[in-house]
Amino acid sequence: MQKIDQLKNWLYDNNIDVAYISNPKNVHYFTGFESHPEERILGLFVLKNADPFLFTPQLDVEVAKASGFKYDVFGYLDHQDPFALIADHIKDRQKENVSWATEKDSLSVEKLEAMQEEFPNAQFKYSLTRFIQEMQLYKSQDELDLMIKAGQDADYAFQIGFNALRNGISEKQVVAEIEYALQKRGVMHTSFDTIVQAGKNASNPHGAPTDTQVEPNQLVLFDLGTVNQGYMSDASRTVAYGTPSEKELEIYQVVLEAQLAAQKAAKPGVYASELDKIARDVITKAGYGEYFVHRLGHGIGTSTHEYPSLMEHNNLELKAGMAFSIEPGIYIPGVAGVRIEDCGYLDDEKFNSFTHTPKDLTEIMVRD
Amino acid sequence: MQKIDQLKNWLYDNNIDVAYISNPKNVHYFTGFESHPEERILGLFVLKNADPFLFTPQLDVEVAKASGFKYDVFGYLDHQDPFALIADHIKDRQKENVSWATEKDSLSVEKLEAMQEEFPNAQFKYSLTRFIQEMQLYKSQDELDLMIKAGQDADYAFQIGFNALRNGISEKQVVAEIEYALQKRGVMHTSFDTIVQAGKNASNPHGAPTDTQVEPNQLVLFDLGTVNQGYMSDASRTVAYGTPSEKELEIYQVVLEAQLAAQKAAKPGVYASELDKIARDVITKAGYGEYFVHRLGHGIGTSTHEYPSLMEHNNLELKAGMAFSIEPGIYIPGVAGVRIEDCGYLDDEKFNSFTHTPKDLTEIMVRD
Repeated sequence: MQKIDQLKNWLYDNNIDVAYISNPKNVHYFTGFESHPEERILGLFVLKNADPFLFTPQLDVEVAKASGFKYDVFGYLDHQDPFALIADHIKDRQKENVSWATEKDSLSVEKLEAMQEEFPNAQFKYSLTRFIQEMQLYKSQDELDLMIKAGQDADYAFQIGFNALRNGISEKQVVAEIEYALQKRGVMHTSFDTIVQAGKNASNPHGAPTDTQVEPNQLVLFDLGTVNQGYMSDASRTVAYGTPSEKELEIYQVVLEAQLAAQKAAKPGVYASELDKIARDVITKAGYGEYFVHRLGHGIGTSTHEYPSLMEHNNLELKAGMAFSIEPGIYIPGVAGVRIEDCGYLDDEKFNSFTHTPKDLTEIMVRD
Repeated sequence: MQKIDQLKNWLYDNNIDVAYISNPKNVHYFTGFESHPEERILGLFVLKNADPFLFTPQLDVEVAKASGFKYDVFGYLDHQDPFALIADHIKDRQKENVSWATEKDSLSVEKLEAMQEEFPNAQFKYSLTRFIQEMQLYKSQDELDLMIKAGQDADYAFQIGFNALRNGISEKQVVAEIEYALQKRGVMHTSFDTIVQAGKNASNPHGAPTDTQVEPNQLVLFDLGTVNQGYMSDASRTVAYGTPSEKELEIYQVVLEAQLAAQKAAKPGVYASELDKIARDVITKAGYGEYFVHRLGHGIGTSTHEYPSLMEHNNLELKAGMAFSIEPGIYIPGVAGVRIEDCGYLDDEKFNSFTHTPKDLTEIMVRD
């Protein structure tokens, strides 16, 4: 079934008249039309008893029509009131518009109030957030194919990054090499700011690349992702530049064991929290539990962070079609950090990774 | 006066108890603390009768404290309810919390509802949007200094882009060269996706770079911007690769005349709409009015599009301290497009451009 038809069925089942999709990512998800309207108004309106329509800035109307969306596309000019026009289009199509559902997680209060002014007798109490999150939990084969390609781009990016390591190159310069090579390959966007962290910088699980220079005999952590037609990749590798300390080698092996254990256990029927526990137990038993300070993983698709969340207390049952990361880490402040991450999807039997860069410790020879 | 004190005075004058700043850009603007909390909760809370405080994910607390913010910073862990913690902190500090102001243009309905649950007797009717927009209309010398540096980075990017032009290079590859050189310079972020458009592709004023290859004897349009500590640059140049047609040269001169006329006329006391008209009249008189399909300019600062908007009907009086773009263009579908843009600021006498790349037509020799 088409995604829009699923939404329409949901409206029908819940007796909701109008769904207003304003988040550009979700408009893309439902229609195939990708845009960045910035401060201008974009909306997909799905109606219980009439055909849906797209509403975009006039500049984007032709692109939207060419995107494969098979219903009407209406535009507006900068000096027009978009909400008044939207209201007219809706009232032209269906009489009863009293019950609305919106993306409460992203719709701004201002847009909600503007729509309330046009429909003063309507109720805007329903949220689309959970419905969309649950829909997006399950990826179609078309979506998985886009993510498989994004994973190949991420693998390519790792190779570029590993090859760029040399004495004295800064973390930022390694990022520059990675993103340059990606753009030359035609991959114009990363799904988040590429992370390269050398030595103890990697002990900050939230760090951005700095001017710190790579030195011999340390670990270097890479966390990167790419965008392919709106679908994301996200993966982490930690490599040895020269010969790291015994301690560093030890925590690497613990993280690797945890990552492989969780990846092996990932199959339909397992609970999200169980998977987190499997990886966490490995790390805790090795004595590093306090240094694994984040959840095991997150869903991925049109966003790098979506459902399911692999963490303690999440009793969601994992099922075929779900795509998520498995990314244990150990971060010892001021000493070192290791994270190993693959994203992949579940089929009926197992977890299939989107990225295939080896996870046995990659050792890179020191060079000038 | 410190920015936070200005906000506090505004609360006092309007008898509002709490201002809730949730937009990371505005938190940065008021506190100097830059972050990307994604789905996690970030808030600056400014209180009428007590000290303000910052609320961030626990991972960011130390960075926030180090950012120069001189008041308390509180964190939360992923398994905690951030809104309950925020409510406790607010109630600890001041008793009366019935009247709230929020950024209605960016605050999500979900966050508003979560806060309403914590303060069921409070009114959330005030919007901070206009107050913040008006504050941001006037840049301090510190802010202008950051934007002057961003302008220098944009000038550097133009040189890289012009030098990259050669037969057969694609628009995307030129973008790759620009962004690579910027990152090697330490400029890790552009303020929007870099635009390079060759020949008739430039007739789309909203276009992204494509695989189209640069060919001899055409115009090539560049529109790019960089970020310096949260402050943006944004500039456009159109250059000749080889010898463009008479028609192309003619529209270039018309756009240049319009840009220079508006730039010369830009001084305190002029209305935003007047400036738009000065440029538009030049283009209309030359017979190209229908092809100048956007406003003359937009404000710039921590966003690339903010107040003032230079367009018809905007009777805002321009004043010293305002920073904005002047960017007339002519786009003839299927033929060619020219845009010339500088951003700059007004002092007491004149417009001072942040970018200084020459605007007389740059002619680049055809090369392989």
